[in-house]
Amino acid sequence: MTAEKVKRAERMVAITQVLMAKPNVIVPLNTLAERFGTAKSTISEDLLSVRESLRLSQQGRLETLPGAAGGVRYVPEISKNEAERVLQELAEELSRPERIVAGVFLYMTDLLFNPAVLRPLGLIFAGAFRKDKPDVVVTVETKGIPLALVTSEALGVPMVVARHGNKVTEGSSVSINYLSGSSGRIQTMSLSRRALEPGTRALLIDDFMKAGSTARGLINLMAEFEATVVGTGVLMETAFRHEPKLVENYLALLRLEEFDPLSVRPAFI
Amino acid sequence: MTAEKVKRAERMVAITQVLMAKPNVIVPLNTLAERFGTAKSTISEDLLSVRESLRLSQQGRLETLPGAAGGVRYVPEISKNEAERVLQELAEELSRPERIVAGVFLYMTDLLFNPAVLRPLGLIFAGAFRKDKPDVVVTVETKGIPLALVTSEALGVPMVVARHGNKVTEGSSVSINYLSGSSGRIQTMSLSRRALEPGTRALLIDDFMKAGSTARGLINLMAEFEATVVGTGVLMETAFRHEPKLVENYLALLRLEEFDPLSVRPAFI
Repeated sequence: MTAEKVKRAERMVAITQVLMAKPNVIVPLNTLAERFGTAKSTISEDLLSVRESLRLSQQGRLETLPGAAGGVRYVPEISKNEAERVLQELAEELSRPERIVAGVFLYMTDLLFNPAVLRPLGLIFAGAFRKDKPDVVVTVETKGIPLALVTSEALGVPMVVARHGNKVTEGSSVSINYLSGSSGRIQTMSLSRRALEPGTRALLIDDFMKAGSTARGLINLMAEFEATVVGTGVLMETAFRHEPKLVENYLALLRLEEFDPLSVRPAFI
Repeated sequence: MTAEKVKRAERMVAITQVLMAKPNVIVPLNTLAERFGTAKSTISEDLLSVRESLRLSQQGRLETLPGAAGGVRYVPEISKNEAERVLQELAEELSRPERIVAGVFLYMTDLLFNPAVLRPLGLIFAGAFRKDKPDVVVTVETKGIPLALVTSEALGVPMVVARHGNKVTEGSSVSINYLSGSSGRIQTMSLSRRALEPGTRALLIDDFMKAGSTARGLINLMAEFEATVVGTGVLMETAFRHEPKLVENYLALLRLEEFDPLSVRPAFI
């Protein structure tokens, strides 16, 4: 746009749009001042009102960062009420008996690949783990990738995906073997040496946890990279296997309570 | 929030936040009127100003849908200037010589898994293919998944992911074989019967196209589901293989012009 003067209300709305279109990206106040043809002090006043509106709309908050590299950024959030409603609805959808496949599997793929379903889940994970300051969200292919991506977007950090087997297109890599609980077989997961630097703070995200062997494998893989695991989140855990899980201190959003009759319940909040 | 009266500017900002937090979701005017404790006619006036601000901020547009199921929705868009800038920057980043792996591969994974890089790419694909009215975005695992997800989110439709080999957790599936150009081997891709209904309009999205064998495989798979392929988009195509591609009418955002020295250029806009 040109630097034409615009009315205050419209400028406030346009500032909101610019910030929300790039969640977690710091926008310098000077950039906004130039873009909307007004003084930096005026932009600061506008931002006070935008902040107040966010309190009303409950769609997140603004963070102001001082200094030369400073500015303002929009941090997307989900309210507690909305999170509860989302998990309750998802639990009901996942408890429909026609989701049982071949008598023993729960079909979740349509939900795991639907951006409208994923977006609030990413905000819930981000809200739970932001305090742990992850530098990266890590998952293993395939079905957990979209969930990890929306979480990484909500946190404003990149995603890293471990692969099954070695991929020649990614250069030298580190591989570990683990006993997969679902297949009962030894599996391999690997990650390019380029993917993580030592000391990285990693948040592990996956779609499903039975015994926890995949999460345990990811934790072992992170140790090879000298990364610190700051948290583990899964969309759903099973409650009906009696052996203890292979990992501790994970967050599950939903719990598969029973399979016959099918019953999924919110496990968080 | 409670139904307290708020100042017009703050209400406009809050309405903007509610709409932008759920892109492509229709919000009834009554819902906004109740939420902000004001008349529907007042909300309509507010929306005129929000629409005007979007013209200024160039972050998309509002669509009003009449009737009982009607309301307003936010459609995210990227401006032509911003799209050009994004593709130019990405082309430069991808032309850095240290991205060559093992002498023959281009390392792109860090970019393909970074939400800040992906988001504008999803908006570019959505802008190019919205007129073709896709019902679903289809890709094949693994590296194209994040790109397909951001495109599906920008379009407001679900994503479907074909897998390599059969996955027992998804019930009966349809598989096709294809000759992979990169490995020179016969590969299998499969998709659960539950994933697509006949007559679905499918937009195919992938990260990379050499000969086009993967895209050709996806097209054949779509035919098995009686789905209509309305478009094919790839982030990057190669220009230096002389044989013609196995697919026609695809959109590539970037072109790998040369490998030695490495040169990637914008191919779109």
